[in-house]
Amino acid sequence: MSDPLPGFPDGLLAEFLAEDAGYFVRGDRLLEAGRSAWQDYEVWETARFGRLFRLDGCFMTSERDEFHYHENLIHVPGMAHAGLRRALIIGGGDGGSAEELLKYPSVEKVVIAELDAKVVDIARRYFQAVHRGAFDDPRVELRIGDGMRYVHDEAPAAGARYDLVVLDLTDPVGPAEALYSEVFFAACRALLTPGGALVLHIGTPVFQPERVQALVQRLRRVFACVRPYFLHIPLYGSLWGMATAADELDPVAIDAAEIDRRLGERAISLLQHYNGAVHCAQFALPNHLRDLLA
Amino acid sequence: MSDPLPGFPDGLLAEFLAEDAGYFVRGDRLLEAGRSAWQDYEVWETARFGRLFRLDGCFMTSERDEFHYHENLIHVPGMAHAGLRRALIIGGGDGGSAEELLKYPSVEKVVIAELDAKVVDIARRYFQAVHRGAFDDPRVELRIGDGMRYVHDEAPAAGARYDLVVLDLTDPVGPAEALYSEVFFAACRALLTPGGALVLHIGTPVFQPERVQALVQRLRRVFACVRPYFLHIPLYGSLWGMATAADELDPVAIDAAEIDRRLGERAISLLQHYNGAVHCAQFALPNHLRDLLA
Repeated sequence: MSDPLPGFPDGLLAEFLAEDAGYFVRGDRLLEAGRSAWQDYEVWETARFGRLFRLDGCFMTSERDEFHYHENLIHVPGMAHAGLRRALIIGGGDGGSAEELLKYPSVEKVVIAELDAKVVDIARRYFQAVHRGAFDDPRVELRIGDGMRYVHDEAPAAGARYDLVVLDLTDPVGPAEALYSEVFFAACRALLTPGGALVLHIGTPVFQPERVQALVQRLRRVFACVRPYFLHIPLYGSLWGMATAADELDPVAIDAAEIDRRLGERAISLLQHYNGAVHCAQFALPNHLRDLLA
Repeated sequence: MSDPLPGFPDGLLAEFLAEDAGYFVRGDRLLEAGRSAWQDYEVWETARFGRLFRLDGCFMTSERDEFHYHENLIHVPGMAHAGLRRALIIGGGDGGSAEELLKYPSVEKVVIAELDAKVVDIARRYFQAVHRGAFDDPRVELRIGDGMRYVHDEAPAAGARYDLVVLDLTDPVGPAEALYSEVFFAACRALLTPGGALVLHIGTPVFQPERVQALVQRLRRVFACVRPYFLHIPLYGSLWGMATAADELDPVAIDAAEIDRRLGERAISLLQHYNGAVHCAQFALPNHLRDLLA
């Protein structure tokens, strides 16, 4: 797994987004590679993205580009919520989602339930620019273990409830597949406080329209209000989908001015991507996506 | 030029968006390739995009994906304008921009000033799905020749004026470079009727931020109101920029409901991408693009 995809020119890291198309970036130096109990991992130095992390040959995150993904995964539901206090991240072992959540003065607790200790180890040693010390924040509880078991058994047994559950996972193939099931979504819903929400990425509508459609339909069978939104993520080489799913929380019901007001009130600054106008714009669906997700 | 980029696996057509990154799609069958007086051209059959057209190794248009580019290039200024009658397209030899303009009941005349007769020849034989017979519409005048000379000399000499000038060109390197100059922008402005506008694509802010920034600054030295907007275009492998430039016309001043009302009034239907919500959303700039284009 430490080699570029066979057949590509030397030094180019490629990822197929579909069987017949994909994206490539030059990897200048392989810093570390190996196989954890769960997956192959690589850390590359690149001119374009700084340090870049791959799992099973798929681009996961990078120093320079992570803000597209993490800011929009967290702040779209986070700003729509009246006052986040407790959040649960399933996956998210790079610490990037926790880092965004810790920007909220109201946040008291962030539980990260990451399956693979190696991901956290890699993040701690190479991706300070992504987690910015989140793992050492006293509000953060890192639990290495099965997110499925945590959501189905341990959290309910402990009476834990969350204002926001974040599925910050690899794509719904391989180890993470069961975490995109209807039964798992329902178990997440059962952990939510009143007014709480689930948020997750749902893949690329350009290359995986059936997957995006199926995930939105599945979420709608569990939650009253499902709001897909889309943005271009350079490292992922395409337009990418995310969705909030909730019974009450509706990020579309809030206008740009109110989002900007809340950003100010909560003193969340230094964002590189997300703002009030972007919050609203990301929910505007082109006709072909309206049809796909009708 | 008829071969995939050297070093890539057989059958993959690749385009570098920067020196170190890019995009690829499988080409299943080369239908035609050659060199015109101006550039290398190829027509490929692909599973993903249907027929696909390349110039000098760069993806230009495709049957299945062209709507992203042509709808947004034309309808953003076209819907903001109170009543387009006459339009000039510089380049646009595939006929896709003309086809969108001909949807307006108010349009009386569309001049296409295309440098390369071979592009039109290829479009007529392979890309009916893009131009849909636009070249044979009595409102269309096809002029094969130098767009620069048309704008600087022939149109002013003939007293021709346009409500919309569309720069539907290859990127600002090679043959098209002089058509992105300040002096050419000023010559386009001189052809505009009161309330008229120029529209053009300005490249990808992900891979060519300096080019996007320079073009917007150059446009601002010529026009009072320059409005950059961005969308993901699958065939171009990234987020792509366009801009309107005008003295009065301001597409940001119109809300989504009014755009949808005008779409109805003008009986423009069957669009695959563009709608009122998308019109407005595309002008929402992430913080890093606000900074780049401040």
